[in-house]
Amino acid sequence: MKLPKVTSCCTPLLSGRLTVDEATHLAAIFRVLSEPVRLQMLSLIAAQPSREVCACELAEPLGLSQPTVSHHLKLMYEAGLLKRERRGTWIYYQVLPEKLAMLRELLS
Amino acid sequence: MKLPKVTSCCTPLLSGRLTVDEATHLAAIFRVLSEPVRLQMLSLIAAQPSREVCACELAEPLGLSQPTVSHHLKLMYEAGLLKRERRGTWIYYQVLPEKLAMLRELLS
Repeated sequence: MKLPKVTSCCTPLLSGRLTVDEATHLAAIFRVLSEPVRLQMLSLIAAQPSREVCACELAEPLGLSQPTVSHHLKLMYEAGLLKRERRGTWIYYQVLPEKLAMLRELLS
Repeated sequence: MKLPKVTSCCTPLLSGRLTVDEATHLAAIFRVLSEPVRLQMLSLIAAQPSREVCACELAEPLGLSQPTVSHHLKLMYEAGLLKRERRGTWIYYQVLPEKLAMLRELLS
């Protein structure tokens, strides 16, 4: 599932009738956020002084295997919630605050 | 699944580490919002001049059966996204904007 990297879209939920396409797009992002461990990951990434983490640093604090961590990170990247950068062997992730700002706008 | 009717809780996602309980609570609300038809329902309810609808008025515009409509409304009620009031045979639903405000706060 690859969601478009829109950072603004859609009618705010309570100020007009959502189209089917808007509802489908928004629901897909909420589905990505509907796993507790993904929310913990977002929170952990944002809590770093550098605002980024290496994928290799998340497995131990969350008690997950590396493939599981990578799977969740990939889904959040594809939903536009994270950006990523490869450095050598590892991929580093940062939260994309614009996407969360878009969700806040939609929930108004 | 009956979620507590909290209207404020939890650490904002990007300003501290979520606890497991906070992440679980928040993820459960996002799961309720992860069905396009539920978002369309919220939008339809909020778009009414009276800001409420009878459960009987949603089946036709959404092309759903009455039991399906009632199922989705019940889940949104249990998640604290809607309030409801029985009048005679039918139940009327209103959006609870406080819950959406709480989600906006959490996504900051």
